[in-house]
Amino acid sequence: MRLLLGSGGLRTPERQQIYFDEMGSIFAGCEEVVFIPYASYDHAGYTTRLAEFSAPSGVSLRNIDDYENPISAIEEAKGLYVGGGNTFLLTKKLHENALIDVVRSRVRDGMPYMGVSAGSNVACPTMQTTNDMPIVQPASFETFDLIPFQINAHYHDGNIWLKEGNQFEPHFGETRAQRIQEFHEHNERPVIGLWEGAFLRWQDDTGVLVGGDATVFHPGEAPVTHLPGSEFNDELFIHHR
Amino acid sequence: MRLLLGSGGLRTPERQQIYFDEMGSIFAGCEEVVFIPYASYDHAGYTTRLAEFSAPSGVSLRNIDDYENPISAIEEAKGLYVGGGNTFLLTKKLHENALIDVVRSRVRDGMPYMGVSAGSNVACPTMQTTNDMPIVQPASFETFDLIPFQINAHYHDGNIWLKEGNQFEPHFGETRAQRIQEFHEHNERPVIGLWEGAFLRWQDDTGVLVGGDATVFHPGEAPVTHLPGSEFNDELFIHHR
Repeated sequence: MRLLLGSGGLRTPERQQIYFDEMGSIFAGCEEVVFIPYASYDHAGYTTRLAEFSAPSGVSLRNIDDYENPISAIEEAKGLYVGGGNTFLLTKKLHENALIDVVRSRVRDGMPYMGVSAGSNVACPTMQTTNDMPIVQPASFETFDLIPFQINAHYHDGNIWLKEGNQFEPHFGETRAQRIQEFHEHNERPVIGLWEGAFLRWQDDTGVLVGGDATVFHPGEAPVTHLPGSEFNDELFIHHR
Repeated sequence: MRLLLGSGGLRTPERQQIYFDEMGSIFAGCEEVVFIPYASYDHAGYTTRLAEFSAPSGVSLRNIDDYENPISAIEEAKGLYVGGGNTFLLTKKLHENALIDVVRSRVRDGMPYMGVSAGSNVACPTMQTTNDMPIVQPASFETFDLIPFQINAHYHDGNIWLKEGNQFEPHFGETRAQRIQEFHEHNERPVIGLWEGAFLRWQDDTGVLVGGDATVFHPGEAPVTHLPGSEFNDELFIHHR
């Protein structure tokens, strides 16, 4: 099983180069990769933009809407890329199109899977560590369950600040760490917060962090931040070969 | 019908004084006010902290858990205050305890309602403009439907910044305005973004903004920011007497 799970926030040339390299690597040998744009409102426009942005990877993406049937598109796919946007919208459509089981089965059988932002959230047992607004109500929060932990994308710690003119003012909303700790008041699974630009390159039951930091949360323990190159087991503890 | 709907972020003495004044005013004459702490994990601890914080208002709060039955607590309440925390947790418990209809009916009949943050979200037709993480799955996103528009609490526009040492770095996550515009790709109801410290003092079908700014979103139109003292009708247009 091979997954590439990214945080998003690919706004700098350095981050983009890592994205191109990692994407080219996971989909090496795939003639065409099925792209799921359900997290965005404009499927066709988003697929076009993402395919153009991703061109330096050498990977050819095709919108799942352009296949005759989404289930058979997945059944026959060489690789799957699930894009970003709103995770509630994505999850709703995945359930409506009955894609949860077929994606899980194909990925477990070896089809490479790439997700960025919302696409990483849905690789988890549930979408419950998304940052997105619940703009639609999915049938269930359950998602592909490809890994036994949760991802929080666009992770950052500390408080956020707003710029007013040339001044920075603190904002008193909850920190991301507080939100994840609240998740752990009701759920047991560990959570990995991927900082912007970071990817988790996952194979079977271990993974390597690439391109950025990650902060790991186990219930009842202080969060720990890890550097690129760190290897994790499927309980999100450091993996020693 | 009388509502006081706050954004939260009450960390400055000026904001706190407005909170005490407004809270004392909406609950004037109420011997005891029922407090719903369901948005927090520790109901008793949160009620105690909030009651102490709110003491200068002169209002006496009692945890709904301390009544024999939550439905009859609402049926007999002189006033209701719904506190902040996680809106998914709050909404799940409101449905489990079958409180949606009885609260709606009592408030429409004149029982004063105060909500802050999550407690303002659930005064709306749905909780779908919350900023919170979906740490639990409620039976439905539908909430009290006391007003015909949506509230976004802790609103701010512009991008957020993170402080690293003494440096500020931009964060590339979506802005709040983008999230609300995504909500409008799937929903028609107008949204009012209450800036931290702001309250909407609502009576029947008009309201006055107090204590902070608010940014109003109508589908397909540019957002408009209004100052304290602005009066709105129930479509969130400026109300001219």
